[in-house]
Amino acid sequence: MSYPDKVYLNGSIVNSGDAKISVFDRGFIFGDGLYEVMVQINGRFFYEKEHLARLQSGLQKINIEFCVSSLKNEIIGLLKAAALSDKDCLLYIQITRGVAPRQHSFPAHIKPTVMMYAVPKVLPEINTINAHVITRNDFRWSRCDIKMTSLLGNVMLNEEAMQYECFETILHRNGVFTEASHSNLFFVKNGVVYTHPADEYILNGITRIVVIELCHSLGIEIKEIPLATEEINTIDEAFLTGTSTQIAAIQKIDNHLLFKGNEKGPVTQRLQEAFLKLK
Amino acid sequence: MSYPDKVYLNGSIVNSGDAKISVFDRGFIFGDGLYEVMVQINGRFFYEKEHLARLQSGLQKINIEFCVSSLKNEIIGLLKAAALSDKDCLLYIQITRGVAPRQHSFPAHIKPTVMMYAVPKVLPEINTINAHVITRNDFRWSRCDIKMTSLLGNVMLNEEAMQYECFETILHRNGVFTEASHSNLFFVKNGVVYTHPADEYILNGITRIVVIELCHSLGIEIKEIPLATEEINTIDEAFLTGTSTQIAAIQKIDNHLLFKGNEKGPVTQRLQEAFLKLK
Repeated sequence: MSYPDKVYLNGSIVNSGDAKISVFDRGFIFGDGLYEVMVQINGRFFYEKEHLARLQSGLQKINIEFCVSSLKNEIIGLLKAAALSDKDCLLYIQITRGVAPRQHSFPAHIKPTVMMYAVPKVLPEINTINAHVITRNDFRWSRCDIKMTSLLGNVMLNEEAMQYECFETILHRNGVFTEASHSNLFFVKNGVVYTHPADEYILNGITRIVVIELCHSLGIEIKEIPLATEEINTIDEAFLTGTSTQIAAIQKIDNHLLFKGNEKGPVTQRLQEAFLKLK
Repeated sequence: MSYPDKVYLNGSIVNSGDAKISVFDRGFIFGDGLYEVMVQINGRFFYEKEHLARLQSGLQKINIEFCVSSLKNEIIGLLKAAALSDKDCLLYIQITRGVAPRQHSFPAHIKPTVMMYAVPKVLPEINTINAHVITRNDFRWSRCDIKMTSLLGNVMLNEEAMQYECFETILHRNGVFTEASHSNLFFVKNGVVYTHPADEYILNGITRIVVIELCHSLGIEIKEIPLATEEINTIDEAFLTGTSTQIAAIQKIDNHLLFKGNEKGPVTQRLQEAFLKLK
């Protein structure tokens, strides 16, 4: 991991080391902000419209007044300054409620803080990941549909995966699997794909939506029904989805080995191949 | 609300307007930090030892290596610079994991960010608050024992109280009352005081602990048992506690009026009077 060269901050493009915000930014004091991550592949942002629409919808959910369409030109300028205009790269966008003396409730008449940066990122060939994951209780809040920066729960859960040298932590709540610390979760059982419905317990990932559409177009049965934790030993395949994760096959869940070596489930493989063709 | 004159930031004392941190601070990117609030009354911090011990314990829970005893001299220097050494004031302390390129898991070898400021604050005579509160579902995470800065849930819940021109939002989860958006919650029924036990669903407030001790010393029966939501119409009194809230009588819960005008419950009043004597 390294810092980007350039950072966009409230209308200016500055060097990373100079990108500073007030300690009274509510993003720092309260985690009172949202973020979005997009990848540019072959000169265009993958599902840009959907990412920006989700960001706009999230801002409305937490009452931050900001129009994301104003970002489009700013993104072009940032990529140019970072010499990434035509390069494969990852774009991070963060919008907070803005700067104000500390009070819990929303201060009136403050201007949102907008921060963005891009880093070179060539997405790995998705077929190479064979993820080991651990399972943990999903102790996060019950508004996981909001892509907020108050992420200490996700951070703690992801750290646990790293401690076990795993790729991700998959989560369960009320007896069913929800999602992972920063990706969505799918299972395959008897040829049917299962994933948690897009309610308030998961973030409705853009790649998640794409995979559901791919299932429809490939004639694979897909059910937005969560898998019960006690069914874990009855599944045939499992995979994770996310903007940089794309579609990552799961090889091992805790001590339960699904596949050996480079083996992979047929449904996961079909979806990965179809996904690659979308780029 | 206004900004403090001076801010302590990583060993330096600067003017508020110059107190800036990197956008890559994990406090800004992930809400990956903790905070503490203490009040100085009559020249000494009220329960300073307990506040700093809780901060130290929180840092251990989320694996941030930092020794809070090093703050004591820094606090003295900050108060002096802010011309608040002997004044009644509120001290805010925030410690984040530090600055690093964005990755969810904990980066190795980074230095925590420490930010503090003090503002003049004369606590109101506690007998004057007769709080109106609303009730909401407690949708926050299940580690409310950690006093973290990932506070979007608390912020949203507190904002709802403001929308209804109320003092606070009291929360219930799994059929019982837990606490409020930034204070602890007590009920009185047939002369017995009830409050949620200090488990992972509430922050174990210092004032909460003091009130429990006061109950013991005054011979008031106290049970750390949560009140069921359906019992709300059977209670005699209710009050909130917090570092700046102290002990605030609740007058009205949603549409349920407990007291009129300046009326107040006898148990709340006894505890308030005993609390005043501790200062």
